[in-house]
Amino acid sequence: MAVRVDLNISLDGFATTTDQTPEKPFGDDWPRLTGAYVATRTFRERVLGDTSGSGTTGVDDRYAATYFEEIGAEVMGAGMFGLHTFPDDPDWRGWWGDEPPFRCPVFVLTHTPRESISFANGTVFHFVSASPQQALALATEAAGGKDVRVGGGATVAREFLAAGLVDRLHVAIAPILLGRGIRLWDDLRGLESGYEVTAETAESGTVHLTFSR
Amino acid sequence: MAVRVDLNISLDGFATTTDQTPEKPFGDDWPRLTGAYVATRTFRERVLGDTSGSGTTGVDDRYAATYFEEIGAEVMGAGMFGLHTFPDDPDWRGWWGDEPPFRCPVFVLTHTPRESISFANGTVFHFVSASPQQALALATEAAGGKDVRVGGGATVAREFLAAGLVDRLHVAIAPILLGRGIRLWDDLRGLESGYEVTAETAESGTVHLTFSR
Repeated sequence: MAVRVDLNISLDGFATTTDQTPEKPFGDDWPRLTGAYVATRTFRERVLGDTSGSGTTGVDDRYAATYFEEIGAEVMGAGMFGLHTFPDDPDWRGWWGDEPPFRCPVFVLTHTPRESISFANGTVFHFVSASPQQALALATEAAGGKDVRVGGGATVAREFLAAGLVDRLHVAIAPILLGRGIRLWDDLRGLESGYEVTAETAESGTVHLTFSR
Repeated sequence: MAVRVDLNISLDGFATTTDQTPEKPFGDDWPRLTGAYVATRTFRERVLGDTSGSGTTGVDDRYAATYFEEIGAEVMGAGMFGLHTFPDDPDWRGWWGDEPPFRCPVFVLTHTPRESISFANGTVFHFVSASPQQALALATEAAGGKDVRVGGGATVAREFLAAGLVDRLHVAIAPILLGRGIRLWDDLRGLESGYEVTAETAESGTVHLTFSR
């Protein structure tokens, strides 16, 4: 069982854009940051429900497929679930419609209690006020021997990385400079110690970097 | 004739370390930042004068060799030449001893006039108070049709990049997180526009990224 993080970042290290509005909840920068991933066959099938077989099938798709393999539970921040964007909507059920791509228990970190939300495809959102260690303990138990993903956002991922809780970090680095947003790498000096770091370049120009231990 | 920049940066974007002292002018982080480059056969021969043929000969060495090809003149900041580290030494002749690896005219940007310094191998340091455009005009004329390098440091390189003066940017990204230093990428949002960006991973784990136009 491993704790895994997968993020899309820009060359200048921004993992979350900051030009979001309620009308544009991901901002204008988001499509450029995640474009190579969104273009993959795996993303189109798994997240968009497009079973036509369209989408890229190269290196980016290999990482996209790996992303979904062997994950038994997920932990994410309140912002990633959307609670910061829609704080006053008690019926908010996440960004993902009726088929959230997780298909496993997801523990959303928030100090505000909410009822759990279940979907037919196996996704269940639980809302917990917990430290990273406590959240991982819950997720690990729920994962039943499979891996646990810390999904994000950037601030949450960095918190788990800084605490030494992550076994495998995969970043897909888009060859673009955003110049603004939330930096993944802040205050992680020396993170590479104890990890093997490998890099691979995709046809899209995306650089896939993996820290494994 | 092209204007070229080549820099070693960390994964978190630091191109210059900031732990320098007069006793340790490059700081403790420098060897880790530049290790893959310094290990190449080209660096050992060209910069260290080691003609024994030792050093790596893979992807890193190919970029190192390209680094020195077709450069007719160089522009660098006062800090890279060492004027910020040894401001009170009128006899300072740079870090590189009697065989500076440039072998061409080098224009050092400084507001303090100094006499030019010539070396037997063709390196001549000129000290000029000039804007980026003016410095490039001087270097272009001195280069006699060959390329001009903007050598650094990071702040100077960023200034030339922001002014749109650079035709080819090559960064060798070491898979380490420094967490401190001078960021290359600050305030360069959208730099990739107008460039083709390619990436290649070396045996050392270094990712070579090239912006070309």
